[in-house]
Amino acid sequence: MKAQHSAPVPPGIRKVTIQDSFWSDYIQLVRNVVVPYQWEVLNDRVAEAEPSHAIRNFKIAAGLEKGDFYGMVFQDSDVAKWLEAVAYLLESEPDSELESLADTVVELIARAQQPDGYVNTYFTIKEKDQRWSNLAECHELYCAGHLIEAAVAYSNATGKRTILDVACRFADYIGNVFGDEPGKLNGYDGHQEIELALVKLYHATGRQTYLELSRYFLNQRGAKPNFYNEQWEERGRTVHFPELQMSHDLEYSQSHLPVKQQEHAVGHAVRLVYMCTAMADIAAETGDEELLAACRRLWSSIVSKRMYLTGAIGSMAHGESFTQDYDLPSDTAYAETCASIGLIFFAQRMLQIEPSSVYANVMERALYNTVVSGMSRDGKQFFYVNPLEVYPPVLGKNKNYDHVQPRRQGWFGCACCPPNIARLLASLGQYVYTVKDETIYAHLYIGGIAQFELDSGTVTLEQRSDYAWDGAASFHVHVPRVSAFTLALRIPDWSGGIKHLRVNGSEYLYDAKEVEKGYIRLDRVWATGDTVEVSFEMPVLRMQGHPLIRQTAGKVALQRGPFVYCLEEADNGGQLYQLTLAAGSELAVSFDEELLGGMQVIKAQGERRSSAPWQEELYRPDAQWIQEKTELTFIPYYAWANREPGEMTVWTNHSS
Amino acid sequence: MKAQHSAPVPPGIRKVTIQDSFWSDYIQLVRNVVVPYQWEVLNDRVAEAEPSHAIRNFKIAAGLEKGDFYGMVFQDSDVAKWLEAVAYLLESEPDSELESLADTVVELIARAQQPDGYVNTYFTIKEKDQRWSNLAECHELYCAGHLIEAAVAYSNATGKRTILDVACRFADYIGNVFGDEPGKLNGYDGHQEIELALVKLYHATGRQTYLELSRYFLNQRGAKPNFYNEQWEERGRTVHFPELQMSHDLEYSQSHLPVKQQEHAVGHAVRLVYMCTAMADIAAETGDEELLAACRRLWSSIVSKRMYLTGAIGSMAHGESFTQDYDLPSDTAYAETCASIGLIFFAQRMLQIEPSSVYANVMERALYNTVVSGMSRDGKQFFYVNPLEVYPPVLGKNKNYDHVQPRRQGWFGCACCPPNIARLLASLGQYVYTVKDETIYAHLYIGGIAQFELDSGTVTLEQRSDYAWDGAASFHVHVPRVSAFTLALRIPDWSGGIKHLRVNGSEYLYDAKEVEKGYIRLDRVWATGDTVEVSFEMPVLRMQGHPLIRQTAGKVALQRGPFVYCLEEADNGGQLYQLTLAAGSELAVSFDEELLGGMQVIKAQGERRSSAPWQEELYRPDAQWIQEKTELTFIPYYAWANREPGEMTVWTNHSS
Repeated sequence: MKAQHSAPVPPGIRKVTIQDSFWSDYIQLVRNVVVPYQWEVLNDRVAEAEPSHAIRNFKIAAGLEKGDFYGMVFQDSDVAKWLEAVAYLLESEPDSELESLADTVVELIARAQQPDGYVNTYFTIKEKDQRWSNLAECHELYCAGHLIEAAVAYSNATGKRTILDVACRFADYIGNVFGDEPGKLNGYDGHQEIELALVKLYHATGRQTYLELSRYFLNQRGAKPNFYNEQWEERGRTVHFPELQMSHDLEYSQSHLPVKQQEHAVGHAVRLVYMCTAMADIAAETGDEELLAACRRLWSSIVSKRMYLTGAIGSMAHGESFTQDYDLPSDTAYAETCASIGLIFFAQRMLQIEPSSVYANVMERALYNTVVSGMSRDGKQFFYVNPLEVYPPVLGKNKNYDHVQPRRQGWFGCACCPPNIARLLASLGQYVYTVKDETIYAHLYIGGIAQFELDSGTVTLEQRSDYAWDGAASFHVHVPRVSAFTLALRIPDWSGGIKHLRVNGSEYLYDAKEVEKGYIRLDRVWATGDTVEVSFEMPVLRMQGHPLIRQTAGKVALQRGPFVYCLEEADNGGQLYQLTLAAGSELAVSFDEELLGGMQVIKAQGERRSSAPWQEELYRPDAQWIQEKTELTFIPYYAWANREPGEMTVWTNHSS
Repeated sequence: MKAQHSAPVPPGIRKVTIQDSFWSDYIQLVRNVVVPYQWEVLNDRVAEAEPSHAIRNFKIAAGLEKGDFYGMVFQDSDVAKWLEAVAYLLESEPDSELESLADTVVELIARAQQPDGYVNTYFTIKEKDQRWSNLAECHELYCAGHLIEAAVAYSNATGKRTILDVACRFADYIGNVFGDEPGKLNGYDGHQEIELALVKLYHATGRQTYLELSRYFLNQRGAKPNFYNEQWEERGRTVHFPELQMSHDLEYSQSHLPVKQQEHAVGHAVRLVYMCTAMADIAAETGDEELLAACRRLWSSIVSKRMYLTGAIGSMAHGESFTQDYDLPSDTAYAETCASIGLIFFAQRMLQIEPSSVYANVMERALYNTVVSGMSRDGKQFFYVNPLEVYPPVLGKNKNYDHVQPRRQGWFGCACCPPNIARLLASLGQYVYTVKDETIYAHLYIGGIAQFELDSGTVTLEQRSDYAWDGAASFHVHVPRVSAFTLALRIPDWSGGIKHLRVNGSEYLYDAKEVEKGYIRLDRVWATGDTVEVSFEMPVLRMQGHPLIRQTAGKVALQRGPFVYCLEEADNGGQLYQLTLAAGSELAVSFDEELLGGMQVIKAQGERRSSAPWQEELYRPDAQWIQEKTELTFIPYYAWANREPGEMTVWTNHSS
């Protein structure tokens, strides 16, 4: 019996509880391992982790202890993300011990709040007089945004108002500091986050001013003359992160153009997708078509030109940034876990505006590959960077790979990704469905119970899923009285077709007209006990890259269902670049129960290119190569680096 | 009629004058374009070049002008390298105007010399009290070394002693500052150069102390505790180049181990090969077998594991450094022109110790590919970095390529490479022959006249060469009386065999015993009028990389004679990664007189992989690829980037 988890949800949905053969394990890890471990780290009680000092910073700022600030300028956000994850866990399953622990954190944050409403331990302890003097670099509004997100989640989960009041007072104060009016700062944060958080605060409180403030920050972005340049001059040209020119490399923070004019996904990948999430939020709230058009353009720039097969984004380490259309190096990729999480946020917002499987397909791709890859099978180690190819002998030697790790790491200083994974998984129910125009859209096939509030009344859907490995799910309807609505089921982009679609046990022969934007629309009058069973053909796909991606030319990557596969040295030996998958070779799928908790692996006949004795020469004109037959074993990408460190590659040579 | 050039030469050789169908043009460029242009730059009279200030620094240091130092801490070396190149030009062909210009530079340097013998404009003008306080970073002995090299060359060429006296006074002063004795500094320079220069000064003056000082610097290198760490502490932990940890990253400057214990080519590539050159010099002078063994190990590490097909070295931009065995990325290579020049120095020294074609083959490879590639066909633009693959759309976007230029650049701030090319080409005669045990070794087939001093008397050899394109050369002997000696002719590593070997017009059937270490030894009694004609089979080779080089797996590079070839977009269209050279295709060689001064090109049938209409998707499982036949045109690598900027690749996909 898998544990149950629920989470706050998009409009039209009351509650979604996850109970899934694939995902419940991960969510339990968040509850039982990640969140408790993170608490110890935040309190500097984990010997092997870099000291966080995050809780102590709050104690000092609250006047409860003496000491200096320590950590990154955005260290506060670790506490906020922890609290947000806890909130989602509490919402799905009460836990009085965890809740009283969280209450002490809430109390601490409240005491660290300054009389004017300001909350930020760095500027309270370390640079008292420098509030808002370096928006480009110092993350004050970013930290505010995470505090607000946590506050909304925690008050939703517990009904307690203390932290929400803290957040509102802070947001009110921010509204007094920033704006067009004389005497106010005409600025916006270097790292987008406050914008999407203020929309959540608007939803939680109904106060229009928060929505307006979010819109203000978005509209202000990219205005000329540039605010960061001006602040840089005003403060005497000091910088906080000298290795990045944050006040001048405006593309880095997407401040090079007004957001509505932006065409290409550029700069720091996490910032871009957080910004796009807020843009979609504001477009949804205001009906701003120009803003929505910009969302669509940026979405398209990301997913049609600048995204990895694994749903990862960010092609280079410098600036954790996008580079150029079709520049998708496998080995030097940055591909940050947080960026894929942000891409999921963006997709979820777009799905609320205009349900289309183009968004949900990408959401699934990012979730089942990069996000899950981000955490080890024991929940204790994390990838920040998710390369698609690793060659360990050169790591530490060739500096182009300095950001790449061959194994997941424990918690460290800039701990953005682990708590981001925790809060995403703890709130996974938010991403399964959306509702629009009396239609329930099932975007993800993740088991659990969802309650909807339609105009026609309450609907409860129980989804049972064997989707991850078998492509099958079923929906069981509970309605207080018969009810007309549409259940729209996503047809995944990887499916070779619908294998079965049964309504109440009978094969349902759907009409092409019933398929819209990638969803089969089942428009019926439903009664309790109605069932829908769907299963998809799940062929192993030989995925290939666009002709303009030079890094994937002549290569294929296997994908089956939502999972992208990879070759690892543990199964295939080293020198993976000498392996070739033959064009016609059979791709045999089998479930390996022993492997890392059980997973489907793909075996195929391949060839290993090896040389006859080569001697010492580095180059030869007369090399004799032997193609030796060998069995290739592919495992899902998310499971890589859970055994001995070794080579890994997603893209494999392919004979044509 | 090609102009004649001579140069100072290794022991046993009096003079070598170059008159060659391929090289004379380049040497003329040095005389007519590079050296005059460089003079203008050094005097800040070239509008489009970054100000050099190098001559002005000397004027200020000499008290002739007022002002501040400007430029790199090693700016003085640009003046020295210019003077050295001028010396070689004067040696081969008197030029009173050039000589009197050079005399004014000598005079200026002499006036900038401090009363104690010290010469360095940075520490004379800018940091008066900081002499020798930062050996790791500040290049004082490096600049001294270049001054000494220039002095030796200029006094050899002109017979004038002024600059040699300056150099000796400086070297004497250095000998008083550095050493094991109490009160002396126990250090050595971060950038090796003084070591090889002091050996030259020893040869020029016969003073043993210079040889001992060179040996001291070499032996001191890598001693524990580390000298750079100690100086860093002593000067209060200040650094000059904060982006590189020169005082702590000891591999960077090969200071991690005593030189005799070093096994692998690590760190800054230029520094390593300059160091190895001096190690070989000292080994030759002292018979130190341990040092010679280290030379052989480091040579082998470079050429068997860490060298590009083009004779380039340095796999990454960070630190302009070596990385790891078999890590030879084509696109992010640093492959600095200066490093290949240093590799040629090293090879030349090893050839004097133990003639073997393993050294000369590499010397030729570096010279005909990376070094010539370093200069444009008009002598006005230069490559510092010589990648083996360039994809212009990502340059400026993906920071991993920030060091890569798609076209040669004019002179700029850190102008190490242009004057290094100039001095190498102006002294090319030094690299053609060595003499050992009454054997004249012909390493390079470059036309000209060489005079040798053997025990048996003077020998003059006139070499006529059509080697570059046709693999043929002839030698014409002039001796005052019949003379017994051996002429050893290198059999190039690329040759498919000897096509002809004729002595006095008759085919010479040589015995296998006459071939030793890659040379055919013609041991005869020679008379004036004797001729040797040799020509080599010159097949187009499909070169392949060692099985452990992952970047060349499944690829080939064409080579014919000394030239490595490449594909350029100008001939082949873009997306070069979609092209494949078929395994069996004919490789047709033809001379294109119109192309960039005339060169042999190779045409072959290949295929271009293009997709049927792809739509917008970034990845597809059902891509239909079409292999279209296409003609591939390969040009010599050295000639790339002389037309419209575009893609280039040395390594090409190869169907097997």
